[in-house]
Amino acid sequence: MSHLEETDTENDSEAGNSLSGDTLKILVATDIHLGYKEKDAIRGEDTFVTFEEILQQATKNEVDFILLGGDLFHESKPSPYCIQRCLELLRKYCLSDKPVSIEFLSDQSRNFLSQRVPIVNYEDPNLNIGIPVFSIHGNHDDPTGHKQTSVLDVLASTGLINYFGLWNDLSNVEIRPILLQKGKTKLALYGLSHIKDERLGRLFREKKVHLKKPDGNDWFNMLVLHQNRAARGVKNFIPDSAIPDFMDLVIWGHEHDCKIVPEVTENRVQISQPGSSVATSLASGESLSKNIGLLKVCKQEFVMIPLPLKTVRPFLIDELILENPLSNSYHSEKPSEQAVNQVKEKISQMIEEAKSKYTGPNQAPLPLLRLKVFYYSEQQQFNAVRIGMHFGGRVANPDDIIKLNSFTAKERKKNCNLNLD
Amino acid sequence: MSHLEETDTENDSEAGNSLSGDTLKILVATDIHLGYKEKDAIRGEDTFVTFEEILQQATKNEVDFILLGGDLFHESKPSPYCIQRCLELLRKYCLSDKPVSIEFLSDQSRNFLSQRVPIVNYEDPNLNIGIPVFSIHGNHDDPTGHKQTSVLDVLASTGLINYFGLWNDLSNVEIRPILLQKGKTKLALYGLSHIKDERLGRLFREKKVHLKKPDGNDWFNMLVLHQNRAARGVKNFIPDSAIPDFMDLVIWGHEHDCKIVPEVTENRVQISQPGSSVATSLASGESLSKNIGLLKVCKQEFVMIPLPLKTVRPFLIDELILENPLSNSYHSEKPSEQAVNQVKEKISQMIEEAKSKYTGPNQAPLPLLRLKVFYYSEQQQFNAVRIGMHFGGRVANPDDIIKLNSFTAKERKKNCNLNLD
Ligand SMILES: [Mn+2]
Ligand SMILES: [Mn+2]
Ligand SMILES: [Mn+2]
Ligand SMILES: [Mn+2]
Repeated sequence: MSHLEETDTENDSEAGNSLSGDTLKILVATDIHLGYKEKDAIRGEDTFVTFEEILQQATKNEVDFILLGGDLFHESKPSPYCIQRCLELLRKYCLSDKPVSIEFLSDQSRNFLSQRVPIVNYEDPNLNIGIPVFSIHGNHDDPTGHKQTSVLDVLASTGLINYFGLWNDLSNVEIRPILLQKGKTKLALYGLSHIKDERLGRLFREKKVHLKKPDGNDWFNMLVLHQNRAARGVKNFIPDSAIPDFMDLVIWGHEHDCKIVPEVTENRVQISQPGSSVATSLASGESLSKNIGLLKVCKQEFVMIPLPLKTVRPFLIDELILENPLSNSYHSEKPSEQAVNQVKEKISQMIEEAKSKYTGPNQAPLPLLRLKVFYYSEQQQFNAVRIGMHFGGRVANPDDIIKLNSFTAKERKKNCNLNLD
Repeated sequence: MSHLEETDTENDSEAGNSLSGDTLKILVATDIHLGYKEKDAIRGEDTFVTFEEILQQATKNEVDFILLGGDLFHESKPSPYCIQRCLELLRKYCLSDKPVSIEFLSDQSRNFLSQRVPIVNYEDPNLNIGIPVFSIHGNHDDPTGHKQTSVLDVLASTGLINYFGLWNDLSNVEIRPILLQKGKTKLALYGLSHIKDERLGRLFREKKVHLKKPDGNDWFNMLVLHQNRAARGVKNFIPDSAIPDFMDLVIWGHEHDCKIVPEVTENRVQISQPGSSVATSLASGESLSKNIGLLKVCKQEFVMIPLPLKTVRPFLIDELILENPLSNSYHSEKPSEQAVNQVKEKISQMIEEAKSKYTGPNQAPLPLLRLKVFYYSEQQQFNAVRIGMHFGGRVANPDDIIKLNSFTAKERKKNCNLNLD
């Protein structure tokens, strides 16, 4: 990869030199979940703001294209407002006079199965595409309703994105890659839109997933998919080991934790998991810093540069174990009141801590907080929503900051987790 | 109007002559109702097929723009399939190298109120617009849901249409026209998207509808609106007389009967009611022949040429009064069976009659039929749906051909209608 790092620092500024002319620059992102909480008075615009940041990064880095790994939308039937915002942003950033210097080599009617006019958008003479977007669908924006149409089909029919990776025959999967060339770099991009995990897992085990390699050994083979990767149940995920070893890089969508720096599997495949660009749950994985990736591919080498997202709200997750009323040191006569005071103090600390995560004026200022509070006795319980509301105006999610559980439940869960490991 | 007819026959073929250079050619259509019955196995594609015919007529006639009078969509939240089909067709016909030779003179931020980037589509350097579309919304595609967004906003955000005529202040209506110029012809296009009829009627009566005339007397003033025109209730419609007399032409959407040849009101305003391009009910008004209009405007003269739609299914409506079992001539012992035979024969005749309305290979072959059957005695009743099903494969709507009513009800209704006149 030293080769690429060189181009990055030394040569990228010189336009037209042979190295940058051979380097594919791809902006990689997944799970943008447009429209998530769009009706929320505080968080309503979050997904659109961050999508705009992603498109700005693509522009700034002059990428050859954007690759999205599914769940661009939070709902398969988004509101008209949500679709409108998405189209507006795509139109604003993806149309321009910037020339597109990637050559499309494969059969477009096979790559863009769901489109009645299967043509890659930047070859349409009526559209001035500056940055092509390629996207698979996820489980949130999969085909739905009459004639099983995805909202990505809606976008694709305008020519603002290229929707690929659709596959409907669940007895046998055949993936014909999009073949792209820039200078001496040849990319085979295998897309597989979301399929029910259990079904796809079985197809992998039964060797019924066929990735059709193009002729020649000089291709950079990259797979993008949108599936469970973490073991959530015995057969309900795709193990890393299922990925065929000729794959040079995998972009794994669906998992919201950012693990964008590629991990190497036992069969030596590199897997990058960009993670979501918005927290759609208050789970710990979502509190990791959010990044998208600038992927540079030169011939068969690559480097993935994480780009931290600056518009994303800080999200802090923490826990508080209340004092045990049975312990010797306990000396409150009003256990509930004592608990409330402890909780309020903790939340105030978290709000302070969130300030240290401030990335600048583009960031939404109010943080997301999740405090898990564990009590020993029923007397320590309190109205969690009311206490949360006390922090209205200082926190983005006052109505669900606190999660109240008994300490016994925590211990049980811990043991259970240990068993699973 | 003789002037225009001349240009039509003699000069239109000579490109660039002064007369055709001054003549605005506008394709006018309303109430296309995309997605109506889209799940129906027989009629599902009807609205899309006819929309394509309309766009083909626009192309063939090399119009300067298309003007739509609302209800482009049947539902305010159309299925992804429906939006996709619409976008595909707009992209196919409205993008091209054909130059647009109309100049936009008014303030776009005032004309395109609902768009964050208010720009007429053909001035966007990134889109190759050949035929601009201008549309108001109707009551079927009005703003809805989160942030009150119309599906027309979705289309407009792609740049495939120009959505105008939105007005939200219901205490006072102010219409600032789109000002367009082609050669010596200056068009002031006043758009008013659908407003609740009762409310708008009151605003007209209270002189709170202000149409802002541009400076100068050389404008052709044209209003497009989408309201009840027929008296459906005391205050539930806009009377023709409400239209200010400086208006040269009104395009009236919402009413589905085709009355496209302009009618002159008592205050000498000409009103053209194009009617729907698909029958959304089996009422007699929908059985009139369906047309769109080719409107030619030269300076302050105009001509509206009806263009019959050839893809629309034939729709025949008729009635059958069964024989009265009490009459002397009646001699059946099985009144229900006798009725069924009479009805079947009548429907067979209608099917034959429909064949004479065949316009050519682009027309959907199976006709829509509505037969109103009136009986005298309960004994004459039969299962209307089952008889309809007998014509499956020969009729587009076998499940609702027949409407069964007692003859007494018919007489009552007739008297009632007379009273209303
Ligand atoms: Mn997701
Ligand atoms: Mn997902
Ligand atoms: Mn209508
Ligand atoms: Mn209407």
